[in-house]
Amino acid sequence: MINVGVVGATGYTGIELLRLLSKHEAVELSVITSNSEKGKLAQDVFPNLRAHVDLEFKSHECEQLKSCDFVFFATPHATAMHYVPNLLEQGCKIIDLSADFRIFDAALWEQWYQAKHTCPNLLNKAVYGLPELNRHKIKTARLIANPGCYATAVTLALLPVVKEGLINISDIIADAKSGVSGAGRKAALATQFSEVSESFKAYSASGHRHLPEIIQSLNSVQIEQKVDLTFVPHLVPMHRGIFATVYVKSIINTEELQKCYTDYYSQENFVDVMRSGSHPDTASVRSTNMCRIAIHPSKNRTQPTVILSVIDNLVKGAAGQAIQNMNIMLGLDESIGLTTPEMIS
Amino acid sequence: MINVGVVGATGYTGIELLRLLSKHEAVELSVITSNSEKGKLAQDVFPNLRAHVDLEFKSHECEQLKSCDFVFFATPHATAMHYVPNLLEQGCKIIDLSADFRIFDAALWEQWYQAKHTCPNLLNKAVYGLPELNRHKIKTARLIANPGCYATAVTLALLPVVKEGLINISDIIADAKSGVSGAGRKAALATQFSEVSESFKAYSASGHRHLPEIIQSLNSVQIEQKVDLTFVPHLVPMHRGIFATVYVKSIINTEELQKCYTDYYSQENFVDVMRSGSHPDTASVRSTNMCRIAIHPSKNRTQPTVILSVIDNLVKGAAGQAIQNMNIMLGLDESIGLTTPEMIS
Amino acid sequence: MINVGVVGATGYTGIELLRLLSKHEAVELSVITSNSEKGKLAQDVFPNLRAHVDLEFKSHECEQLKSCDFVFFATPHATAMHYVPNLLEQGCKIIDLSADFRIFDAALWEQWYQAKHTCPNLLNKAVYGLPELNRHKIKTARLIANPGCYATAVTLALLPVVKEGLINISDIIADAKSGVSGAGRKAALATQFSEVSESFKAYSASGHRHLPEIIQSLNSVQIEQKVDLTFVPHLVPMHRGIFATVYVKSIINTEELQKCYTDYYSQENFVDVMRSGSHPDTASVRSTNMCRIAIHPSKNRTQPTVILSVIDNLVKGAAGQAIQNMNIMLGLDESIGLTTPEMIS
Amino acid sequence: MINVGVVGATGYTGIELLRLLSKHEAVELSVITSNSEKGKLAQDVFPNLRAHVDLEFKSHECEQLKSCDFVFFATPHATAMHYVPNLLEQGCKIIDLSADFRIFDAALWEQWYQAKHTCPNLLNKAVYGLPELNRHKIKTARLIANPGCYATAVTLALLPVVKEGLINISDIIADAKSGVSGAGRKAALATQFSEVSESFKAYSASGHRHLPEIIQSLNSVQIEQKVDLTFVPHLVPMHRGIFATVYVKSIINTEELQKCYTDYYSQENFVDVMRSGSHPDTASVRSTNMCRIAIHPSKNRTQPTVILSVIDNLVKGAAGQAIQNMNIMLGLDESIGLTTPEMIS
Repeated sequence: MINVGVVGATGYTGIELLRLLSKHEAVELSVITSNSEKGKLAQDVFPNLRAHVDLEFKSHECEQLKSCDFVFFATPHATAMHYVPNLLEQGCKIIDLSADFRIFDAALWEQWYQAKHTCPNLLNKAVYGLPELNRHKIKTARLIANPGCYATAVTLALLPVVKEGLINISDIIADAKSGVSGAGRKAALATQFSEVSESFKAYSASGHRHLPEIIQSLNSVQIEQKVDLTFVPHLVPMHRGIFATVYVKSIINTEELQKCYTDYYSQENFVDVMRSGSHPDTASVRSTNMCRIAIHPSKNRTQPTVILSVIDNLVKGAAGQAIQNMNIMLGLDESIGLTTPEMIS
Repeated sequence: MINVGVVGATGYTGIELLRLLSKHEAVELSVITSNSEKGKLAQDVFPNLRAHVDLEFKSHECEQLKSCDFVFFATPHATAMHYVPNLLEQGCKIIDLSADFRIFDAALWEQWYQAKHTCPNLLNKAVYGLPELNRHKIKTARLIANPGCYATAVTLALLPVVKEGLINISDIIADAKSGVSGAGRKAALATQFSEVSESFKAYSASGHRHLPEIIQSLNSVQIEQKVDLTFVPHLVPMHRGIFATVYVKSIINTEELQKCYTDYYSQENFVDVMRSGSHPDTASVRSTNMCRIAIHPSKNRTQPTVILSVIDNLVKGAAGQAIQNMNIMLGLDESIGLTTPEMIS
Repeated sequence: MINVGVVGATGYTGIELLRLLSKHEAVELSVITSNSEKGKLAQDVFPNLRAHVDLEFKSHECEQLKSCDFVFFATPHATAMHYVPNLLEQGCKIIDLSADFRIFDAALWEQWYQAKHTCPNLLNKAVYGLPELNRHKIKTARLIANPGCYATAVTLALLPVVKEGLINISDIIADAKSGVSGAGRKAALATQFSEVSESFKAYSASGHRHLPEIIQSLNSVQIEQKVDLTFVPHLVPMHRGIFATVYVKSIINTEELQKCYTDYYSQENFVDVMRSGSHPDTASVRSTNMCRIAIHPSKNRTQPTVILSVIDNLVKGAAGQAIQNMNIMLGLDESIGLTTPEMIS
Repeated sequence: MINVGVVGATGYTGIELLRLLSKHEAVELSVITSNSEKGKLAQDVFPNLRAHVDLEFKSHECEQLKSCDFVFFATPHATAMHYVPNLLEQGCKIIDLSADFRIFDAALWEQWYQAKHTCPNLLNKAVYGLPELNRHKIKTARLIANPGCYATAVTLALLPVVKEGLINISDIIADAKSGVSGAGRKAALATQFSEVSESFKAYSASGHRHLPEIIQSLNSVQIEQKVDLTFVPHLVPMHRGIFATVYVKSIINTEELQKCYTDYYSQENFVDVMRSGSHPDTASVRSTNMCRIAIHPSKNRTQPTVILSVIDNLVKGAAGQAIQNMNIMLGLDESIGLTTPEMIS
């Protein structure tokens, strides 16, 4: 059994990691940490874990992490970078679900995250953990930067056509919508039930942290031209789910476009290219690691093609993708621990 | 007092008309109809109307409608057109909240609404009731085609810059989101609570009926070039509200753009141009006739400018705008009956 | 015009006071305070107040409060008591929407609110502001303790039969359910959207602060015996509304019971006794000052009668009732400023 | 492998059966039926079943059902009774999730369900499938009447103390609250999103169909006296979950009461008796087969004890309990296929 630790196990992605790892047949969940709940039993904080996780929360500094084969970080930004160098030295493999190692240009990271990066030397050792983009590198990685939730939905919607150069790569719009869990599990006025329910809004319309991450990934597969895009996130009064509506100017027709996607993702377990003209909803991926994509033809030569992409932000956008990465690193079937069919609701 | 009738008073827009008209100081609500609830008292069907509306639902065919000064139609599409010619002959003024008179090209209407238009001769007599576009014509109109909810939010977001030719008018994307009340008040599986809550989806991504209406309005103010745009509607798990995120390629800078909007709407009671970079939410217009607009600058020369526009689909997108039109036709202050501050929630 | 001040105007009840007072024909809103937002314009914090409230938030200590005819406190518990004595001396009339003056026994108050009461001498000068119970005293009061939201719904459901001694007054159960706004507008993990939506729970099942308030009111009308009851509150995933399901053992039959209620409330503007067997919902009172009550007969002689009672916790349960009290104190029609029909949603 | 058929697989309980059975290690899902969707692939109707269920919907009359070892009925009431006699003759075992075989007195059933029972002779052959009550009989049953959702939550909250005679068994109140999925998956105005969200209401306050079922079960364990209770159901704006607040007059103290429950359920996999004074919420059992119960002491000798009980109405209240029954009938570990930890949301 693989010994696994989860640092920051009381946020929504941390809890989701516990839910999924506790049933993973190759994994022994050994250490879980939470600076706010340390000393308490997981099942006392989260009754749903009774009979599934029989561990006490430790502090992030606890020694036991060092003996883990894998350590997952589900901490706020600018936290993991303080622990990762030491754990790597101890031989642990790291999957960081926060943003600390996602942007390989330290200056760019510091600009977007408004913090000093404490181990920039690790940035070029980290592998960006989007299996559909970097599976080969992930296999041998020791430090995974698990992608952001928006970045996963948008990048998967664009990878095939950007790589093949089949769209105008500087004229892309990603209008994305997220459930409230994306804001994290913490006391905040803006995400109180009474502030969020029965309302819809855009936020960070002039620039969101997942934008440089998306551009970095798309540029990595398109060497001839520079990719540019506009990305506007919105908040939906629901808990889980990301919906990305992506507008591109295609240079090929819809049939060719559809084929480009089905070919590109034909071997993928967790990308489901639906029939052209389909309307996926976030409920159809709730609690699963699946990304569903559907292409809608442009209505005429000058208008954009519409690509719809849905994921569960806490699974394919966080904990599920992290486990998919671990499975790849272990040489296991990628779908172990990730095959439950979603609940309709 | 002006005698007013409401045909189809048991849908969400009809109920909203009753709510607003029952408090309108210049109006006497005389007749309300509902083929499904005829013979019942309004207050027995809707307890919230107790002490406010003391009327019985009649059938749509009832004779009393003929003696009304104004008749509002809040019926499904392809219904009003069967009653309007006769009522116009009787001297009634008509405000139709359905789509029957919105598209002035009968063939185009029939294509989008999949029905035979029974009085195409009235189409060029109808005035499209968007006050910010057609106030002058509304004053003397006898038949108003009250705009669609999406069309109101999107058109108001684009009118100033399309009219002045300050954007590329064939490269516009309107990514719009609506609360569930937009689907109407009727038994339908797709809008059951359990199907809609905790989910988000696009629909009619390949073409929605409000698109030709938007294009018709924008073309009416821009005679040199043909406007074209892509419009994708989405369903939000909330009752009220429309949020439009509109992407345009501007040929002027943000300051000029902002000035274009504040100038255009400076005399309007019901369009609030917020500071550039603001993030309006639908809650801030809930239950009011206000449209709030905010402009976000493009991040660089090649990327689009983002225009955010919010309304309450049942008020500025339906019943409130209908009353605004009536006020204009009566020569009254436009805001009579429409000034209650919105509830935060 | 009556000069009015609102202390603590950024909570849900404070905002509701602003919404209602800004349209009240006899009132001039002169001062609003908020220690957290002081120095900001109300309309910058709450865009929905643009064009309705043109005031800046002051601190609670501001001098202008002293020149108000009425000062409303919408502050957390144990705040108003520090300001009220001085303002009373200045000649202001006070309507306190918090709990500071609701329990006339200082020791009992201190036990439930876990704080030292700083002006116990005012407790017997305060009038408990439930008009249906204390209208006569309210007329001449200078300090009103505005009732709690649960207490309003439950007390109105029980007043007629307790007063007349028509039930077993020591065998009463009030199972009450509240929307989330009852918890106040503040950053808290327990009321985050993601914690509350799609869940239902009881809280304070072993004792809630509104219990002594309910018992005090019921005992005040029933001098022969001591009233006792069990009260369990629950949290509903919605913003507004209280629903109380009250179980009593009646000694008379349903027709007599129904008559007892219709008689008792026959002159009341804001209590609507529905037909026996009706099912009111909270939506039917949303945004209004109405309490709707319906009686369901016991299924046999030994089983209880069920009394259903609904209010909007922010209106009849707080701001609306406060304005009703002010109207009474001013000798005005009680319903001024409180007559808008509710929105269906 | 056990061959299994599901009749009526497009309702919420039917879909939930598919979700759970498709992962059950001892089961081969062979036939699924739906009269409304027959001829379609399950994965085309429910995209979440892609890669999990590769079957086409048949009609309820299809011959293949006869070769199933187990047939589950997830049909509306008064449907299963037309198919069950024939399938029993063919040797199938039946688990009926509808109400057709729950009430053993045919006349009583006909009174509550307003239909003629077509096979009353089977009523005394059916076993009421609440394992915590009837495990022994379930083992050898051939026809299981799977309990109603409310009945499960309320009966489990009362079984230990009713059986032991530790409460006044004719003075019980069950105030129960259900998510909207309890109303079934069908087009209905009353359960439209816009009708249900942001509202709370009681329904069937004068008598609900689950009441005779609860009384029948409780009477079966308490032979000395007749049990009677009052049961009022309510509708909560959420999809899943039942919360029962049960009020009883106990003749023993809280410690003894707590012990009575922990003893009674000590060997149960799916009943979790929490510490006295705990507040379970429905989220803590979402998507699982668990019932959580907590006892709150009465505040004094004359007031009732409060027992809180929560389940997921679609799992322990329907599909999960049905699978638990199948496991018992097959002599398997009861928890096979039912062990996934719940999602927090």
